[in-house]
Amino acid sequence: MSQNNASPARPSQRQADQLRDVKITRNYTKHAEGSVLVEFGDTKVICTASVEENIPRFLKGSGRGWVTAEYGMLPRSTGSRMDREAARGKQSGRTQEIQRLIGRSLRAAIDMNLLGENTIKIDCDVIQADGGTRTASITGGCVALADAINAMLERGIIKSSPLKQMIASVSVGIYKGEPVLDLDYPEDSSADTDMNVVMTEAGKFIEVQGTAEDGAYSFDELQAMIRLAEKGISELVDIQKQALGVSGD
Amino acid sequence: MSQNNASPARPSQRQADQLRDVKITRNYTKHAEGSVLVEFGDTKVICTASVEENIPRFLKGSGRGWVTAEYGMLPRSTGSRMDREAARGKQSGRTQEIQRLIGRSLRAAIDMNLLGENTIKIDCDVIQADGGTRTASITGGCVALADAINAMLERGIIKSSPLKQMIASVSVGIYKGEPVLDLDYPEDSSADTDMNVVMTEAGKFIEVQGTAEDGAYSFDELQAMIRLAEKGISELVDIQKQALGVSGD
Amino acid sequence: MSQNNASPARPSQRQADQLRDVKITRNYTKHAEGSVLVEFGDTKVICTASVEENIPRFLKGSGRGWVTAEYGMLPRSTGSRMDREAARGKQSGRTQEIQRLIGRSLRAAIDMNLLGENTIKIDCDVIQADGGTRTASITGGCVALADAINAMLERGIIKSSPLKQMIASVSVGIYKGEPVLDLDYPEDSSADTDMNVVMTEAGKFIEVQGTAEDGAYSFDELQAMIRLAEKGISELVDIQKQALGVSGD
Amino acid sequence: MSQNNASPARPSQRQADQLRDVKITRNYTKHAEGSVLVEFGDTKVICTASVEENIPRFLKGSGRGWVTAEYGMLPRSTGSRMDREAARGKQSGRTQEIQRLIGRSLRAAIDMNLLGENTIKIDCDVIQADGGTRTASITGGCVALADAINAMLERGIIKSSPLKQMIASVSVGIYKGEPVLDLDYPEDSSADTDMNVVMTEAGKFIEVQGTAEDGAYSFDELQAMIRLAEKGISELVDIQKQALGVSGD
Amino acid sequence: MSQNNASPARPSQRQADQLRDVKITRNYTKHAEGSVLVEFGDTKVICTASVEENIPRFLKGSGRGWVTAEYGMLPRSTGSRMDREAARGKQSGRTQEIQRLIGRSLRAAIDMNLLGENTIKIDCDVIQADGGTRTASITGGCVALADAINAMLERGIIKSSPLKQMIASVSVGIYKGEPVLDLDYPEDSSADTDMNVVMTEAGKFIEVQGTAEDGAYSFDELQAMIRLAEKGISELVDIQKQALGVSGD
Amino acid sequence: MSQNNASPARPSQRQADQLRDVKITRNYTKHAEGSVLVEFGDTKVICTASVEENIPRFLKGSGRGWVTAEYGMLPRSTGSRMDREAARGKQSGRTQEIQRLIGRSLRAAIDMNLLGENTIKIDCDVIQADGGTRTASITGGCVALADAINAMLERGIIKSSPLKQMIASVSVGIYKGEPVLDLDYPEDSSADTDMNVVMTEAGKFIEVQGTAEDGAYSFDELQAMIRLAEKGISELVDIQKQALGVSGD
Repeated sequence: MSQNNASPARPSQRQADQLRDVKITRNYTKHAEGSVLVEFGDTKVICTASVEENIPRFLKGSGRGWVTAEYGMLPRSTGSRMDREAARGKQSGRTQEIQRLIGRSLRAAIDMNLLGENTIKIDCDVIQADGGTRTASITGGCVALADAINAMLERGIIKSSPLKQMIASVSVGIYKGEPVLDLDYPEDSSADTDMNVVMTEAGKFIEVQGTAEDGAYSFDELQAMIRLAEKGISELVDIQKQALGVSGD
Repeated sequence: MSQNNASPARPSQRQADQLRDVKITRNYTKHAEGSVLVEFGDTKVICTASVEENIPRFLKGSGRGWVTAEYGMLPRSTGSRMDREAARGKQSGRTQEIQRLIGRSLRAAIDMNLLGENTIKIDCDVIQADGGTRTASITGGCVALADAINAMLERGIIKSSPLKQMIASVSVGIYKGEPVLDLDYPEDSSADTDMNVVMTEAGKFIEVQGTAEDGAYSFDELQAMIRLAEKGISELVDIQKQALGVSGD
Repeated sequence: MSQNNASPARPSQRQADQLRDVKITRNYTKHAEGSVLVEFGDTKVICTASVEENIPRFLKGSGRGWVTAEYGMLPRSTGSRMDREAARGKQSGRTQEIQRLIGRSLRAAIDMNLLGENTIKIDCDVIQADGGTRTASITGGCVALADAINAMLERGIIKSSPLKQMIASVSVGIYKGEPVLDLDYPEDSSADTDMNVVMTEAGKFIEVQGTAEDGAYSFDELQAMIRLAEKGISELVDIQKQALGVSGD
Repeated sequence: MSQNNASPARPSQRQADQLRDVKITRNYTKHAEGSVLVEFGDTKVICTASVEENIPRFLKGSGRGWVTAEYGMLPRSTGSRMDREAARGKQSGRTQEIQRLIGRSLRAAIDMNLLGENTIKIDCDVIQADGGTRTASITGGCVALADAINAMLERGIIKSSPLKQMIASVSVGIYKGEPVLDLDYPEDSSADTDMNVVMTEAGKFIEVQGTAEDGAYSFDELQAMIRLAEKGISELVDIQKQALGVSGD
Repeated sequence: MSQNNASPARPSQRQADQLRDVKITRNYTKHAEGSVLVEFGDTKVICTASVEENIPRFLKGSGRGWVTAEYGMLPRSTGSRMDREAARGKQSGRTQEIQRLIGRSLRAAIDMNLLGENTIKIDCDVIQADGGTRTASITGGCVALADAINAMLERGIIKSSPLKQMIASVSVGIYKGEPVLDLDYPEDSSADTDMNVVMTEAGKFIEVQGTAEDGAYSFDELQAMIRLAEKGISELVDIQKQALGVSGD
Repeated sequence: MSQNNASPARPSQRQADQLRDVKITRNYTKHAEGSVLVEFGDTKVICTASVEENIPRFLKGSGRGWVTAEYGMLPRSTGSRMDREAARGKQSGRTQEIQRLIGRSLRAAIDMNLLGENTIKIDCDVIQADGGTRTASITGGCVALADAINAMLERGIIKSSPLKQMIASVSVGIYKGEPVLDLDYPEDSSADTDMNVVMTEAGKFIEVQGTAEDGAYSFDELQAMIRLAEKGISELVDIQKQALGVSGD
């Protein structure tokens, strides 16, 4: 991590361009084809990948597969207890927005023709939230996806790997006037601007979503945030590859 | 419009940086405090702004107001009929994602302290869809919002205008390898990348949402798209101001 | 219109037996096989007819087709904003009652054997309400239905027209003690009795629904209302035929 | 019953103007303020009237009361089992249409000012269906309503009776070309036209709902059906009064 | 009934080991293959058994049948009116718990291989509640089930009877420190412990559910309650057999 | 554990009266007042206890508190992925039955008068299922409840502890003809009888729920199962107390 980018203002004492400690634990639960606990600091998400040997109706007969995602938070993953969505009888707009983002992002990792008429469902369940649950979900979810692909190869469901590239994601924002990487909850809740960036391991963009919560941001700020995201995602891809036992070089 | 940016590939024969014909008709229906028909080419959206002299519970006693939005499409606004969301019993994830975006964007137009404990609800109902319904909704919705503010001033509900700035929005994308402005449906459905940009009249960003549908995009492409969006939104703000009878200079 | 039936009491200054200005605009939106904007004075409804080449399960194999209808109101089509039914998660009893009435009425226009195993869905969406939205929906919906039939003939989906007869509808009521035709909202909301009548172009009844809101009505009043409805529907059928370019003689 | 109006065509061998056997059993269950089993031949409905000492929000402070109704069918009240609405998670359009009709009809029996700020809820639950469940519900429901009023007087909740008049209802229709009274299921399912009529004990109309299921009906047929309904309702009011121990003269 | 087990404390003056008056009326309604009104004192439940010649998807091709149950209460079956579950849009947890219990219990009466690929649905609808509605439902539901089996044999749907044994159920509890049989509502609402027992006619257990509402119970109390239940269920099986015209000896 | 009770038939090689390895990890997540990971072998449940300083409406003004529970399973906590209840829009009957059981059981641990007008909500979320999720939830939930009580004492919300006694739960069943303790999934799915028992630390019963899945069980078998449960629960209470740092003697 760079030393000369000091940001004494961050509550966590991190540098402006410094990720939280990121841990990826594979085979976290025993039933799923891929099961990962991903931790971005105090944010902890269980990501499982489930293989189903069928596809949604709109793809029948196409020879192509599908990847989709669902997202949830345990009611007390947050500072004050949230209502359980299953009990309220519907998923919030926020939940749906996030799971659509995760699904779109992870589909970019896969060659759907090589996947064949199979579906992989990624479930991201937040057991402890401290900011950045959607970016942790994408980053951990891609590792679970890679494990599920491996399981499919072992079982002979597919012949060659449809995994094109790793996908990772991080948030960036303007906190107290300064661009910072990987916002935790105290930063996120008071940031002027919050941007979630999803990139490929080759450094190209899959998704950029930047929202000014208060005020508005300039093109220069946009650029600075994106440069921070590029650095963070590069580090996250290395961590993914180490977890998977693949050389990051 | 620039002449030297020819893009013969566009199905509509438009230049790469050319908006569709945009029309804003105020007072389109008679009951709402603000009622606008906005047309981006063949995309037609009725935007109404309704004033309610109360606020959501989380703001009670704060002295501050609220702006929120809902979005819907008539079942046959599209090429093939979609199920009616009221009959299915829930709004799709896409609908919720769009109405959350419209609400966030239009809140940036308003000083909530000056609005006082009042709510303005923006309803955006698509009667004909041809791409860009969310950007048309934001652009037309802001004019309806301005009219509702005027109605509140006339009725004496508020003393001074909480309207800080106009907000407009446009889509940009990479179509056949080239950045283009204001995608219509034929372009949108085959574009590699689709980005929705929301800006203030002063040229600052409120929201940037860019998604690679197929493949991924580079930082240079991101920049090029954003520059196109800046041009388009500047023109849209002029059209908003002409519609409102305010000089755009 | 008759001159000698003066009814100075009507807020609109209309004669007791006088319709509001009725306009029917065909091809109002571009995607639907039939698309009509129908206006009964300030009541404005978009009626679209969508052709689907399949039928509900209970008709499979019967060789017969189906016509059904859905109805909705834009949230601010009314004086004060109504909750959006899609957001509330269900259609009100009133909405269901109205769409069932529209569907039953329009099925009377069609020979289901000639329609073959096809479905026509009529969507009636009120963009501005001023009384009589269900009668306007039926009257405009039948024109959209006729256009959809024409589209089916052109596309070769059917060989001969299943359109047996035009269907139109109007409301009548007892307002300030006097029978009046085609109630607008100020009349409707204070009428003692409100009756919706649906008839064929040949002057026979498809549906009569008369409700005493306050008090009760006599057989003589019932007869007088029905006679008014016959006159109004005869005029509406002429307007339908003019809109369709068919001689009303 | 008239002898000279023979209708040999009726499956039940009834005369054209003959009601089915109608029985009204009061105090059928023990908890409700009014509890009636009403039988129109094989159609059997439990009607209860429940008193609640509060009112819907829109009436708060008005000094006026409210009467409302709910309707349901036991799943196997019909020839083939219907899905349970509670299990499906919503009431059908037909159910809502019927319960709205029952509520409107029974409100005509009551002076809401004398009822005070109290609500009476009428529940009509069909335990066996053989046609005419809604007309039986209104006829039996009015007796339950009268009993609930008596209970309120006894408990001192109200000082004087708000019951203005009895309300009863019957169906009429055109069966094999002939107007007939009080259709049972075999008639109802093959009738050309079905009309439900609600009247006061004084012979005035509260509601007339006539639907041509197949074909259309003339003004003469409408008149004939209404004349039959008048006769039937007059007899039903006598039966209501006998059940209540009130002289029908 | 035993005389020497006096329990003067019971509000109903019953002995500790005394059932309420139990009545089983077959052929209560006319449409269902089995239709029973069961009365445990003032608790009255209509139990119908409906035969459907198909099975749930998970059994397709197995050659085996299925028995399932649904439960409901009329809104005013209770002392104060409950909301109608169909109107609220969902069944309560209590309802689902009870109907799952009834289904499990009645499946124990049937040999699913002999039933073949047919389903029998038991609907238990409480028209008057006074405690023990679930035990009455099981006891009456088993008689309706037996009648439905007979109807299937008569119609030739099945060749030999799949009815293995009668199933009956009763509640027991600790009321004022003493074990008592078949709690009515006044006892149930103040009992320390409430246990529902389901047994076969041979005296073996299908289900035991005992809940301490207040305090906890000892093994001796558990045994005493179960002994009471054995006695009560033995008597209930006799009543079932008498109703079915089968010798209980 | 006893040695002389060998049960070679158990897939896990456990003795008939042997619990799985049970682990209780406190402070598992950071936000909740009580947060426990409970493991019964491969069954893993996160139990959190959340304190809310208010109560349900039916207790307002009573001076008494409330304890309630909710239960969920991560979609891939099981061998094949289950639909997410939040996405389906309702909780299954099984889920509701389980969470009602957990709530009832844990209320027996608490003196509601000493709790005051506060609510403790127990969330039990299964992250890996291998049989016995409800008994693990109760056993772990009681530890989370104890921690929440401690947090309330520390914060001064309550003055003295309302915790009356520990509550624990275990399943027992008849597996291959023999009574066994603490069934895992392979046993549970093929057991003849499954019984869940909830007891106090003093060895009294809170809840007994025994279901014969196939066949029926005798009184002797019932007794044998309950004796096994007593032994298992006694051991579970010791493990709870060790986890809480309280001497089990």
